[in-house]
Amino acid sequence: VTRQTGGSVFFLTDYGYTDEFAGVVRAVVQRCAPGAPVVDLTHDVEPFDVRAGALALSRAAPHLGPGVVLAVVDPDVGTDRRAVAVSVAGGGTGGGPRHFVGPDNGLLPWALDVLGGPGPAVALPGAPGAPGGPTFDGRDVFAPAAARLWSGSALEDLGPAVDPDTLVRLTAPRLSVQPGGLEAEVQWVDRFGNVQLAARPDDADAAGLGAVVEVHGAGPVRSARRVPSFAHLGPGTLGVVVDANGHLALVCDRSSAATVLGVRAGDVVSLRTVVPARPGPARRPGRPAP
Amino acid sequence: VTRQTGGSVFFLTDYGYTDEFAGVVRAVVQRCAPGAPVVDLTHDVEPFDVRAGALALSRAAPHLGPGVVLAVVDPDVGTDRRAVAVSVAGGGTGGGPRHFVGPDNGLLPWALDVLGGPGPAVALPGAPGAPGGPTFDGRDVFAPAAARLWSGSALEDLGPAVDPDTLVRLTAPRLSVQPGGLEAEVQWVDRFGNVQLAARPDDADAAGLGAVVEVHGAGPVRSARRVPSFAHLGPGTLGVVVDANGHLALVCDRSSAATVLGVRAGDVVSLRTVVPARPGPARRPGRPAP
Amino acid sequence: VTRQTGGSVFFLTDYGYTDEFAGVVRAVVQRCAPGAPVVDLTHDVEPFDVRAGALALSRAAPHLGPGVVLAVVDPDVGTDRRAVAVSVAGGGTGGGPRHFVGPDNGLLPWALDVLGGPGPAVALPGAPGAPGGPTFDGRDVFAPAAARLWSGSALEDLGPAVDPDTLVRLTAPRLSVQPGGLEAEVQWVDRFGNVQLAARPDDADAAGLGAVVEVHGAGPVRSARRVPSFAHLGPGTLGVVVDANGHLALVCDRSSAATVLGVRAGDVVSLRTVVPARPGPARRPGRPAP
Repeated sequence: VTRQTGGSVFFLTDYGYTDEFAGVVRAVVQRCAPGAPVVDLTHDVEPFDVRAGALALSRAAPHLGPGVVLAVVDPDVGTDRRAVAVSVAGGGTGGGPRHFVGPDNGLLPWALDVLGGPGPAVALPGAPGAPGGPTFDGRDVFAPAAARLWSGSALEDLGPAVDPDTLVRLTAPRLSVQPGGLEAEVQWVDRFGNVQLAARPDDADAAGLGAVVEVHGAGPVRSARRVPSFAHLGPGTLGVVVDANGHLALVCDRSSAATVLGVRAGDVVSLRTVVPARPGPARRPGRPAP
Repeated sequence: VTRQTGGSVFFLTDYGYTDEFAGVVRAVVQRCAPGAPVVDLTHDVEPFDVRAGALALSRAAPHLGPGVVLAVVDPDVGTDRRAVAVSVAGGGTGGGPRHFVGPDNGLLPWALDVLGGPGPAVALPGAPGAPGGPTFDGRDVFAPAAARLWSGSALEDLGPAVDPDTLVRLTAPRLSVQPGGLEAEVQWVDRFGNVQLAARPDDADAAGLGAVVEVHGAGPVRSARRVPSFAHLGPGTLGVVVDANGHLALVCDRSSAATVLGVRAGDVVSLRTVVPARPGPARRPGRPAP
Repeated sequence: VTRQTGGSVFFLTDYGYTDEFAGVVRAVVQRCAPGAPVVDLTHDVEPFDVRAGALALSRAAPHLGPGVVLAVVDPDVGTDRRAVAVSVAGGGTGGGPRHFVGPDNGLLPWALDVLGGPGPAVALPGAPGAPGGPTFDGRDVFAPAAARLWSGSALEDLGPAVDPDTLVRLTAPRLSVQPGGLEAEVQWVDRFGNVQLAARPDDADAAGLGAVVEVHGAGPVRSARRVPSFAHLGPGTLGVVVDANGHLALVCDRSSAATVLGVRAGDVVSLRTVVPARPGPARRPGRPAP
C-alpha cells in the first residue's frame, strides 16, 4: 500500500483561465483536503488536445516534488472512457509525485514513464453530479480522488483495480533518423516561438547531423546553424539548440522560430546536413526555453 | 457573532491576468492574514461585467469550502456605491464560506442566495489610499477586510451595520415558459462554446419541451436534440443537455454551440418543440461543462 | 547576516500562462522549500520587456509582505549576464520582502529602491541543467535560490559577493516639466486602458498644470479635464487623475483612454494647460486603477 504523505496537488487542465472551472476544482481540493497546496502547472492546454497535455505533463514530471498529479484534458467526458488513479511504479523516485489522477485517454502514461512507469491503478467510480444534472468530472470525480490520495487514503480504497498495461497510450511522436538527417514531429511551440522537436541529441549524433542544416518545414527551406545557445545567433538567424528539456529545438534570438518556419505542434520538419560538423565536442549548454 | 475559523479566501475579479492587480491583492491578503490560502476562482470576468461575475460566483458557490469570498467587479469605483462585507444567513451551511466581501452593486447576492441568503452585513469605510492618490479598493479596502474576517475579526468590527435587504440586486435573467417552448437568456458561454441558459430541467418539464426542438437565436433557426450527454451527438450536431450546474445548455460535440448559433451571454434564445418527447424518464447524466 | 523567516515567494515573469514554465518553477519552489506560499504577481509581462516587468514590480513592491521576490524577464539568458540575489538595504522595512532573486538586467533595482535600495548582493552560479542540455534559469537557478533564502539560508552562502552599485539599471522613464505643461513617458497601459504616466502630482504642481489640458499623443490632440475621480467624467470624456500608484494617469470612464489617444507603453505624451487651475485644493481621491 502506497500512501501519500502530503506534498502538493499538481494541477493541469485545458479549462482555460476565463471560466471558473479551474477555480472550482481548486476549491473542491481545499474542501476535501484542507491545507493541500495546489500547484497550477497550466490550464491553457489547447481544448481537447490530449497530446499537448501529455507532453506538457511529461516535461514537468522530472521537476515535481512529492504529491498527487491532477490532470484533466478530456474530449471524451460522457463516454465510457475510464477515470483512473495510477500510482508511480516503485512508489515514486527522487521525491516526486506518487499518484496521478485523470482520464484514461493517454494523458497520464508519458509522464508516469518519466518517473518510473505506471504502477498499480484503479478505476474511479462516477459521481452523483449536480442535482438533476450530470457530473463535472474534474470537480466531482478527479478532485475528490486527488484530495483523498493527498490525505493518505490507500489507492485501492478508491475503486476497483485496473491493469496498468491496459491504460490508453497515445502514438509516439514521429521520428525518423537517417544518415545525414532526421525527420521529427514538432512537439511543442512555446510562448517564445521556440520549436521543440521529438528528437534528442543522441538522435542528432546517430544521424551525424552537421554544423549547418537545411530545415524543411511548411514554408521555404531555411538554413540553420547548430549552436550551443541563443547568444550565438545573430538577429533573425535560425539555430538548432538542445533545449532545457533535453530536446532538439529550432530557435531564433528574440523572435519566433515557429513563425519563421510556418510550423506548429504536430507538423513534421526535416533537418538535413549541409555543412558537416567539425570534429570534437561541440555541445555546450544552449539557451533554455525560455 | 459569526467568526471565521480560517478556511480559504476565494478570489474572483475582472482584473485579468496581465497586470499585477490580482497579484498585489493576493500579496495584501498574505500580509494581513499570513498563511491564508488564496483560491483563485477566476480573474478574467469581462471588465465591468457585474452580471457575468455574479453568475460565475453563484455557479461556484455550492462547491466552496469554509472561508471568505473576496469578489471585485466594480465599474462604479469612485462613486458612492457602498463597499460591503456580508455574512451568510445562519452562519453558512454545509461547511461553505461564511462571509462575502465586495462592492454593493449586485455582484454578491446571487451567490449568497445559493448558500442561504444574505445575513448581517456592514459597510466598509474607505481607505487612506496611496500617498497623494486615490484608493485601489481591491487592494486597500476589500483585501484587508477579507483578511480580517479570515483571521477571526467579528463582522460588526469592520463597519456600521447595513440592512441586508438594501443590498443592490441585479435583474433576474430572462426566462419565459409557454406550452411547447421557452425563451431564456444566455447566462454564459464557456471556453468550449457551451451555451448555458437561464432555464432548468423543471422549466423544460413545465413547457413540455420535446425530444427535438427548434432553436431561435441570432442566426438561422437550428434543430437540436435533447440528449443525456455529448456522447449522443454526432459531429457538428446541436444538442440540449442538462449541464453540470443543473441548467439547460446548448452544446455541440467538440465544437462551439455559441458559434453555430451566433449567440453570446445576454442574448435570448427560444426553444420550441418540433418532435414531442417520448414517454418515460429520458433524463440521464449529460456531459459536463467541461 | 539577513536571514529570511518565511513569508511568501512573490513570483513575476514573462512566461505567460499557456506553457507550463511558471508551473514548473512553482513546483521547484515547493520541492526545495515545502510549504512556501507562492504568490503570483503576474506572468504576463510582454515577452522580454524588462522595463515593463521592472515597473510592475516597483508598483507591487510597497504592498508586499515579508518573503522573497522571484522575478524573471530575461532576454539575455545564455549570455554572460549575471544571475543575482540581492537583499533589501537595512534588512527590509515595514515588513516587506528581504530578498530579490533574478537576472541582473535592470529588472530588480527599481523595486528595491522603493523598499530602501539594494543591499548586499551575490552572483548565483550556473546550474548543471537538464541531462545533455542547457539550464532553464528560472527552474534551475532562480527558483532554488529563492527557496534557499526563504528557508533561511544566508545570502552569502549562495554565491560570491557583488557590489550592489554595479547592478544594471534601466534608463529612467522620460519626464520633462516646463511652466504650463509636461512631457512624460507612458509607463503602463492597464487592462482597462488607463494610461499611467511617468509623472506625479508634484510634477503637475511644478508645471502649474491647469484644470483643462491638451493631450498630445500619437493621434489628434485631445482635451482632458483634471478630475478627482472617474465618476466626474461623462461617457467618452478624457480625464487626468492621480491613480492608485500615485501617478498621473489619463483615463476614460468605462472605456480605454489608450485607444482614444492611440498610445502605448513607451510612448511620450505631452500635457499643456488650456484652462488654468482654480485656486484651492482640488485634489481628492480619484478612481483607482482598476
